[in-house]
Amino acid sequence: MTHKIAILGASGYTGAELVRLIAGHPNMEIAALAADRKAGMQMGEVFPFLRHLDLPALCRIEEIDFDGIDLCFCALPHKTSQDVISTLPQTVKIVDLSADFRLRDPADYEKWYGNPHTATDIQREAVYGLTEFYRDQIRNARLVAGTGCNAATGQFALRPLIGAGVIDIDDIVIDMKCAVSGAGRSLKENLLHAELSEGYNAYALGGTHRHLGEFDQEFSAIAGRPVQVQFTPHLLPANRGILATTYVTGDAQEIYDTLAAVYADEPFIIVLPFGSAPSTHDVRGSNFCHVGVVADRRKGRAIVITALDNLNKGSSGQALQNANLMLGEEETTGLMGAPLFP
Amino acid sequence: MTHKIAILGASGYTGAELVRLIAGHPNMEIAALAADRKAGMQMGEVFPFLRHLDLPALCRIEEIDFDGIDLCFCALPHKTSQDVISTLPQTVKIVDLSADFRLRDPADYEKWYGNPHTATDIQREAVYGLTEFYRDQIRNARLVAGTGCNAATGQFALRPLIGAGVIDIDDIVIDMKCAVSGAGRSLKENLLHAELSEGYNAYALGGTHRHLGEFDQEFSAIAGRPVQVQFTPHLLPANRGILATTYVTGDAQEIYDTLAAVYADEPFIIVLPFGSAPSTHDVRGSNFCHVGVVADRRKGRAIVITALDNLNKGSSGQALQNANLMLGEEETTGLMGAPLFP
Amino acid sequence: MTHKIAILGASGYTGAELVRLIAGHPNMEIAALAADRKAGMQMGEVFPFLRHLDLPALCRIEEIDFDGIDLCFCALPHKTSQDVISTLPQTVKIVDLSADFRLRDPADYEKWYGNPHTATDIQREAVYGLTEFYRDQIRNARLVAGTGCNAATGQFALRPLIGAGVIDIDDIVIDMKCAVSGAGRSLKENLLHAELSEGYNAYALGGTHRHLGEFDQEFSAIAGRPVQVQFTPHLLPANRGILATTYVTGDAQEIYDTLAAVYADEPFIIVLPFGSAPSTHDVRGSNFCHVGVVADRRKGRAIVITALDNLNKGSSGQALQNANLMLGEEETTGLMGAPLFP
Amino acid sequence: MTHKIAILGASGYTGAELVRLIAGHPNMEIAALAADRKAGMQMGEVFPFLRHLDLPALCRIEEIDFDGIDLCFCALPHKTSQDVISTLPQTVKIVDLSADFRLRDPADYEKWYGNPHTATDIQREAVYGLTEFYRDQIRNARLVAGTGCNAATGQFALRPLIGAGVIDIDDIVIDMKCAVSGAGRSLKENLLHAELSEGYNAYALGGTHRHLGEFDQEFSAIAGRPVQVQFTPHLLPANRGILATTYVTGDAQEIYDTLAAVYADEPFIIVLPFGSAPSTHDVRGSNFCHVGVVADRRKGRAIVITALDNLNKGSSGQALQNANLMLGEEETTGLMGAPLFP
Repeated sequence: MTHKIAILGASGYTGAELVRLIAGHPNMEIAALAADRKAGMQMGEVFPFLRHLDLPALCRIEEIDFDGIDLCFCALPHKTSQDVISTLPQTVKIVDLSADFRLRDPADYEKWYGNPHTATDIQREAVYGLTEFYRDQIRNARLVAGTGCNAATGQFALRPLIGAGVIDIDDIVIDMKCAVSGAGRSLKENLLHAELSEGYNAYALGGTHRHLGEFDQEFSAIAGRPVQVQFTPHLLPANRGILATTYVTGDAQEIYDTLAAVYADEPFIIVLPFGSAPSTHDVRGSNFCHVGVVADRRKGRAIVITALDNLNKGSSGQALQNANLMLGEEETTGLMGAPLFP
Repeated sequence: MTHKIAILGASGYTGAELVRLIAGHPNMEIAALAADRKAGMQMGEVFPFLRHLDLPALCRIEEIDFDGIDLCFCALPHKTSQDVISTLPQTVKIVDLSADFRLRDPADYEKWYGNPHTATDIQREAVYGLTEFYRDQIRNARLVAGTGCNAATGQFALRPLIGAGVIDIDDIVIDMKCAVSGAGRSLKENLLHAELSEGYNAYALGGTHRHLGEFDQEFSAIAGRPVQVQFTPHLLPANRGILATTYVTGDAQEIYDTLAAVYADEPFIIVLPFGSAPSTHDVRGSNFCHVGVVADRRKGRAIVITALDNLNKGSSGQALQNANLMLGEEETTGLMGAPLFP
Repeated sequence: MTHKIAILGASGYTGAELVRLIAGHPNMEIAALAADRKAGMQMGEVFPFLRHLDLPALCRIEEIDFDGIDLCFCALPHKTSQDVISTLPQTVKIVDLSADFRLRDPADYEKWYGNPHTATDIQREAVYGLTEFYRDQIRNARLVAGTGCNAATGQFALRPLIGAGVIDIDDIVIDMKCAVSGAGRSLKENLLHAELSEGYNAYALGGTHRHLGEFDQEFSAIAGRPVQVQFTPHLLPANRGILATTYVTGDAQEIYDTLAAVYADEPFIIVLPFGSAPSTHDVRGSNFCHVGVVADRRKGRAIVITALDNLNKGSSGQALQNANLMLGEEETTGLMGAPLFP
Repeated sequence: MTHKIAILGASGYTGAELVRLIAGHPNMEIAALAADRKAGMQMGEVFPFLRHLDLPALCRIEEIDFDGIDLCFCALPHKTSQDVISTLPQTVKIVDLSADFRLRDPADYEKWYGNPHTATDIQREAVYGLTEFYRDQIRNARLVAGTGCNAATGQFALRPLIGAGVIDIDDIVIDMKCAVSGAGRSLKENLLHAELSEGYNAYALGGTHRHLGEFDQEFSAIAGRPVQVQFTPHLLPANRGILATTYVTGDAQEIYDTLAAVYADEPFIIVLPFGSAPSTHDVRGSNFCHVGVVADRRKGRAIVITALDNLNKGSSGQALQNANLMLGEEETTGLMGAPLFP
């Protein structure tokens, strides 16, 4: 059985990545592609790397007949996303890649994103889309809220450790490095090649990055009390990849064993041998996440490193993984492609 | 039916690319992986990006039992390749990725590669592996000689034009730009990141690049008389991709029509709209080749631009395409993956 | 004696490069920096790499008192430049980095730039700023028109050869590769890191690039009859550097001897040993231009390769070299800094 | 007065950077350049970017007549360095760029570098080369031991804070990112462009990086008791630059005030406005170090970020700064060149 798929916001990087992935999915068919500002164009004109595919032309969202659509991916900016999703028929399953439905408390949403939430009723039915930890709820959800890419990378390191109580939850530092595609196809000076290539800097310093809202929500829920991590994102002079170097207090071996046990049967989370360091190179273009654990020379201190592809496992790959569950497909279908190296 | 595959020289980039591609092929199984200097290691140790795959350990070539092997990819250095292939049983089909069997005349081989050919009898049965132009012979071949990556890129621009007689064959300039992975995983100073990134230079100047041997052989055969193109390769500060800017004398529209007609039904060769320029970005990680034609302001002069991924369409993808034909599979199986962008 | 300098358009890359160079000049003082949209800001805020310098704040052009200014660099967009320069007092010497005064015939200007020239009287006094070939006129000029960066790179290869009659002027192909800073600090999708890094493509194909106007003007003047070269620019995934691979018909040794003789006493033009290829790496951040000549295997064909830094020798370094001459300084003052490698 | 300079190990990146810098120094003359494996070659052949300079040919160390040499830079591998320096005449001042004389306790040296120290008597007279903190001793030293590039970057953040007692010295995390030239011009697989570009990973994990020996020595000396920081280096896909993100416990404003006061009169250390983040882009190719301080959202936690050029301020620029002091020159001579951006 072939599921009919719509993608809203198809002219951005996550939209294009969805098309790339779904093109290799045996049981999905792209029935509609919307991108308001590029409506009327062919996808292959907007993204020449997709020229070989036979795809519907880009259209405006209101031109889509959602009657035949089984599932809709929304790769729209936050705020726009909630407005659009409010108008979609109840019969359509939705995987939202924006930030609009990630935070369960509308007050948290307003705090981090600056605008009041206007679809709080829909928010209530949204399931947080970190597949490995919300699998059962996702299977039955109508609306799944894809996680932030940094948020996913940090949670793969820390959720099992907070849950098992093997680290000091008041002493967590996440030093994050994210490639430039994480900022989307937006025209900003700091995203120009000449400004970024051969350079390196931190940004959103001191606890101001919006993905902290997800860390706070999720880690506090696991711990049963407020948890606030320290989180500093850096802009990596590369196109794809996130790497989180997470500094924790705890026994490194116990930390390793905890992660190895939790991820033992996960198809996409690969725990490297103890003492090994992951590289973004080794997950690029794939839905895999590599996890490494190292003991520091100071007893009781450990480093956990997680690496994934921000556009794939951190966004569109995760979205497809969730869509598979929502549509009754094998979770891994269309997602087992090996990374691209070099 | 599953074909059993061996890969010799699995620890290089083309070997790893073969593994990546075959991992997604429904009817092939990797039965043996040889890499003499890394024998005993797991592929995931040599190439961590392949850790998720269940693969045989690397072994020495002489440890392989070729009885059960249907097809063997040889990704060995030239010279070594002919020595090894001489020892393989006749029952095994072979796709060679080295330069050893590309040149039909042993004297040409010795001229370009410096050493006498020691397997001239086998050479006689080798078929040149540019699939789109040797398809029928490849189907029936026991030994297919994969082309040089530059050689493939240039031929996709020029073969149809020389064949149709629409350009002046004595006035052809190929300005080639090849990414660094084309030089393999070899430890050379000029391949270091610090020497290459942010820089750009030509090399193998004045007609000394070995892939000229292939151009001479193929273009002369098509034209029925000696053809010598001018060819200058440059080293591109990027990991994958070749782009050939080919300057020819002829009518641009006629050139375009010729290429469009020849490639109309080719699954992997995409001729862009007249006047468009391909980008290596748009074919990276894929088996596709983009072709563009532009008229120069000077009447009777045209530019043909071809872009492909040197490790994929220029090497391992081409090899798999040929293997498919040799094994009676659909030519495109395992090769329709979309490029990775950005 | 210290010359007082104004820079108009200081918030772009060429403006910043001028500041960087002049900061090391013993006899120049930056008296005014204009950048309309950033007026009121400190240069160190717009370009943090200049934070260590004590500079005047950015202002609007009309706020500058030109009475005390000896020389003004105009790093403004074309069209704006002619409007502004028309208003400057006759007492101020001007080095213009825009395209506005490069083409002597206003009809040529309109043909290549699309708008009619509105300062044709000033145009008449402008001297073309390719220092090595217009040195004496530049010394006495009030207004010098800096060349296009591609135009400079191509001319260093070809002017002496056309002048000496050692090549066939009807058979010239310039395959140009220019780094991204050549496009300025402008917000365009194709200049984003994610769109450019790891990719490569030609643009302005078929004789449509505006710098062709300069080639036509200069080469025709030298030859005494119309000369039209074929010119294809490519966008290099690097921040600085231009490399021109120029294909000519002629005797390679004679070509080499001609270039070596013409540039023998030039402080910035370095002719490499015969057969050597320049690299953009080796001139980055400097005012040097490397020149290489190679014989093709086909008798009577040669390749000339020139490499320089587009922002420095191709733009701001050239501008300072010209300013030195106009102000009676040593031509090389402030410009002998070695390239930055790696 | 012109000082005669020798450089041993001139064929590596730090040697070439020394030549680049000294070429712009008005009172130094390069009298000898040694590089054993390249002896007999011209520097411009080994590093074409230095072709414009008139330099002595490379020779073997034993060929140098040290009688006329005022100061010798040793840019040799550790271990070799102590062997060579033992043989130099007492009349020659020495700036060593290797690790051989950084650690005052020979037992520490052996612990971190694996081999016993064979020049412990010379070690006793060596002064640690972090100019800003050892200025007076350096002025009078015969032998100055240049710091590790990571070690310098971390110390610029932490020395004043440990000294002033404004942070918890038992809770310091340094997340370091270093560009590839920090590893030198060595042929290692992980330094190849194809292995590094577009990738990112940590290395020397868990407190095994040798520069920790310097942190331990220096921080403990300041604190008057053992201090062990946590330090994780990462390999940056860029050619130059180090950035340290240092996580500390303390009052951010007090931290900022402390750093601002200590560095107020330093010519090369620039403290950015409170809350600003430095970028490696903004110091590339220069002897400047940018320092930023940010308050974390969690009260009592702060982030200090320091950025410098590993080859310049982190190595050869620092060496020249020290040489200036040792020779009675102005500390800043030859070092005020602006960074190269973009």
